[in-house]
Amino acid sequence: MLAVAVEEARAGLAEGGIPIGAALFDEHGELLGRGRNRRVQDGDPSMHAETAAFRAAGRMRGYRRTTMVTTLSPCWYCSGLVRQFGIGRVVVGEARTFSGGHDWLAEHGVLVTVLEDPECIRLMTDFVAARPELWFEDIGE
Amino acid sequence: MLAVAVEEARAGLAEGGIPIGAALFDEHGELLGRGRNRRVQDGDPSMHAETAAFRAAGRMRGYRRTTMVTTLSPCWYCSGLVRQFGIGRVVVGEARTFSGGHDWLAEHGVLVTVLEDPECIRLMTDFVAARPELWFEDIGE
Repeated sequence: MLAVAVEEARAGLAEGGIPIGAALFDEHGELLGRGRNRRVQDGDPSMHAETAAFRAAGRMRGYRRTTMVTTLSPCWYCSGLVRQFGIGRVVVGEARTFSGGHDWLAEHGVLVTVLEDPECIRLMTDFVAARPELWFEDIGE
Repeated sequence: MLAVAVEEARAGLAEGGIPIGAALFDEHGELLGRGRNRRVQDGDPSMHAETAAFRAAGRMRGYRRTTMVTTLSPCWYCSGLVRQFGIGRVVVGEARTFSGGHDWLAEHGVLVTVLEDPECIRLMTDFVAARPELWFEDIGE
């Protein structure tokens, strides 16, 4: 499942964007929606990878059995999304370059898995080194 | 400032949508962006009133001096937005029909004002009574 999110992150990087990707799956592993950070591409600060994947899945009645997979630990905005809509599980590619609200989600009953995937770490480490101003803009710092 | 958010909420209701509106202002009271819940109108579950107003303001470098005005207490998703981007102040039209993360925001240094405005209360009370299924869909319950 992480491969889809990584593909989104790479596509974002190729477009000159912030390389964070995400995908929402149902309990059978079927893809419901996928997306990537679109701050640069659409000039839209509200489209983080997780919100883009959530949006792509369209209107749904209940998220308890869904899994949000993201290349990077979800920021407070995206963690709030997971908590509000009751997404049952979150798979995080890495939480080394940025640690958002995944511990808070685990405290509130979300099943959280942090993979510390080397490719996800490299993607973000290289990006933050290359474009720090864009990265800090994206997390409001 | 609440008037702009109420205007958005009323416009949403007239479109058959969920009557929640929001607006982002700078420290001089100038409007940066305004918006309303767009779940029904755009089939987009990611566009809550606050995220729509945030999006309409476009890319910005720092939100500390901005104020988010919303007709209803921000849900966890929208509270996460406020916390992540460091929006300094939140004005809440009402928190009686729904209480989201505004206390959590206050604990994390956001200046929060809850007005318990009669018109905001009436808008939501009437809507929840008329369209409970749509309301619970919107907050993931």
